[in-house]
Amino acid sequence: MPHPLRIGLAGLGNVGAGVVRLLADNADLVARRADRPVVVTAVSARDRNRNRNLDLAPYAWVDDATELAGRDDVDVVVELIGGSDGPALTLARRSIDAGKALVTANKAMLAHHGLDLAARAEARGTALRYEAAVAGGIPIIKALGEGMAANRIDRVYGLLNGTCNYILTRMESERLAFATVLAEAQAAGFAEADPSFDIDGIDTAHKLAILAALAFGSRIDFGSVATQGIRAIELADLDQAAALGFRIKLVGLAENLDGTLFQRVHPALVPLDHPLAAASGALNAVAAEGDFVGRLFFQGRGAGEGPTASAVVADLVDIARGVTTHPFGMPVAALTALPTADPASRRGRYYLRLTVADRPGVLAELTAALRDHGVSIESLVQRGQSASGDAMVVMITHVSAEVAVLASLAQMQGSDAVTGAPVMMHILDF
Amino acid sequence: MPHPLRIGLAGLGNVGAGVVRLLADNADLVARRADRPVVVTAVSARDRNRNRNLDLAPYAWVDDATELAGRDDVDVVVELIGGSDGPALTLARRSIDAGKALVTANKAMLAHHGLDLAARAEARGTALRYEAAVAGGIPIIKALGEGMAANRIDRVYGLLNGTCNYILTRMESERLAFATVLAEAQAAGFAEADPSFDIDGIDTAHKLAILAALAFGSRIDFGSVATQGIRAIELADLDQAAALGFRIKLVGLAENLDGTLFQRVHPALVPLDHPLAAASGALNAVAAEGDFVGRLFFQGRGAGEGPTASAVVADLVDIARGVTTHPFGMPVAALTALPTADPASRRGRYYLRLTVADRPGVLAELTAALRDHGVSIESLVQRGQSASGDAMVVMITHVSAEVAVLASLAQMQGSDAVTGAPVMMHILDF
Repeated sequence: MPHPLRIGLAGLGNVGAGVVRLLADNADLVARRADRPVVVTAVSARDRNRNRNLDLAPYAWVDDATELAGRDDVDVVVELIGGSDGPALTLARRSIDAGKALVTANKAMLAHHGLDLAARAEARGTALRYEAAVAGGIPIIKALGEGMAANRIDRVYGLLNGTCNYILTRMESERLAFATVLAEAQAAGFAEADPSFDIDGIDTAHKLAILAALAFGSRIDFGSVATQGIRAIELADLDQAAALGFRIKLVGLAENLDGTLFQRVHPALVPLDHPLAAASGALNAVAAEGDFVGRLFFQGRGAGEGPTASAVVADLVDIARGVTTHPFGMPVAALTALPTADPASRRGRYYLRLTVADRPGVLAELTAALRDHGVSIESLVQRGQSASGDAMVVMITHVSAEVAVLASLAQMQGSDAVTGAPVMMHILDF
Repeated sequence: MPHPLRIGLAGLGNVGAGVVRLLADNADLVARRADRPVVVTAVSARDRNRNRNLDLAPYAWVDDATELAGRDDVDVVVELIGGSDGPALTLARRSIDAGKALVTANKAMLAHHGLDLAARAEARGTALRYEAAVAGGIPIIKALGEGMAANRIDRVYGLLNGTCNYILTRMESERLAFATVLAEAQAAGFAEADPSFDIDGIDTAHKLAILAALAFGSRIDFGSVATQGIRAIELADLDQAAALGFRIKLVGLAENLDGTLFQRVHPALVPLDHPLAAASGALNAVAAEGDFVGRLFFQGRGAGEGPTASAVVADLVDIARGVTTHPFGMPVAALTALPTADPASRRGRYYLRLTVADRPGVLAELTAALRDHGVSIESLVQRGQSASGDAMVVMITHVSAEVAVLASLAQMQGSDAVTGAPVMMHILDF
């Protein structure tokens, strides 16, 4: 058997420990598939003595993770430190520049510095791989970059954050308020103490920017992702959506619109018969549309020790097999810089929810605002809300220009009959 | 730019024509992703003059497809002739033995001769790739062989035949009999004039045997696939299944059961909240369970010109990139010969439907037969059938040994109260 592929592992949190365990548990299988053993030789983490239920004695310990880049007994550096800059980025650059392959699960780093790292890897003729950075165990990087490589892909979208999906699923199934589920998830360790990366959509935006680049052959453009999270979602929205045949999900959506790049993270109404609607709990799901293949749909666990370790080691197996394709599916120099799409050109159906004073003439005011901007209404429901005396009005528009709906909404907000902040969500009609 | 990858294409049916069209339409995109142009240089088909809406003038025409194997202007032979033996097999062997890469969509050939072809490819150090052979445009070969390579996979299953899925979906949605939908599908060209490969499950069995080998690292064993098709499914079964919360699908299921190989193609009751249940019409869908990644689910179009061409060209892009991994994910010599699982060890819940004379004591007879073999009943429905005067009895068993359910069924069939052939189906409880 040829010489082993030797791994230097930076970061021994859940995922890092999972990688060590996987390479031990499935050592024979991985060696058969990789055509040679894949072995950890050196590890680094902040705290050597933290209990991880792992015997670290077989591995060289390195206090400063960036030193992994210079070790002669390391062929591949696996970066699981996290953070867009700082030690993760230093380690990544040094490793690649030293000619070592780099495997990372760090979506924030890739969203900000992915092109720089990929160009360095191409210049050195080494591999940069990141299957674990998006959608956990789902091999979506491989599917977009290799499996769909024959296709012009103009749309990719999905549920890329397990915490948000878990919160929305529990709100719906157990009829709980957002804040209640979030607090429970934090207590149970499913959500971070500072949950804003997840629930404000930033984590989804990082992943979306990576998928868009890979799908469209375009340069990563994290800065142009319009991002809205799930804090404003109320149980009433979930109920109204369900009554109308939809389920609310935090959707990351990227489109190549006639050579412009549309990227948005937002809560959206997904029809119940769409496969995304059925991806519940902490699952991730991705749909991608190719001009020859049509729509492909992928679903699996998006986070956690096992799925993420599975993705990291899949990259290691590819590297062991000698696969060193371009990190973004084509040379960085061949990626197109797409201008940002004009959101004003967007059309679709929209969901609107308003809290209004329960008095005569209010509905006439609301519907006039829509009429004034040429927006027609597909359905409208008004319900009294016993506690406050206010009423809730929910509307679904026909397909309309988004700017027109926004203008209507602004006009409605000028009315003193509208008492709460209105909610507007997109309907996923594809 | 480096020299182009030159393709010799055998077979110009829908898929072959689709490959030619894709390589023309997406030539620039494919070249960017493959790092070099991918061009067809020579083609072969039975009838040169058939109208395909293709200009064949740019390509050398070869009357005898097997001659593609010897051409100096061909790097990769794409075999789209079909058939497990005959010219397809001759072409495949000659091409590989001549050191050319082979791409094929031929599941029958692979199910019967895949190991022989893979061993030849390994001996010559060339590529044998077959993404298009299973589940059309879904990159399931790549997902199992590469994306899930870190995992011990013990179960893979799915809907692998679009014709069967289309027939079952139309029977349910339009309340039509099997024979009616089949005849319409044949008239519309969706189903073959001789539909038995599809509706008797043989096509699914070919694909399943390939997936099992790749998933389990085992030798292809098409001969041990127990195969049952959908001819016996009646509208009454679909209705009863729906009333109980299930949808009937033709499922190919392979499991590694403690080192034995279980492979079965059969109509099964899929719970409505299982993602397989939502894959309707001509869609294909595959679920695979890995020890670290958990269950991954893939869905997409399983046949047709576009999806199949997409899969063929994905293989060509990999070959253009220099990827020549083992066809079955590890060397053929490393694949395990798993003994066939004993079906008698199978346990599960089962659906039974019987047509019985509507007279006192019949239910007592049926339930006694189950009791005599230790099978307990989870639910039972009896309905009178006005036309014949007979009654229909539908039962769902608790988890039981399959042999016990079969023995009960045999005992019931001995009763003169049972007037029609009973139907027994598995319930997919995972």
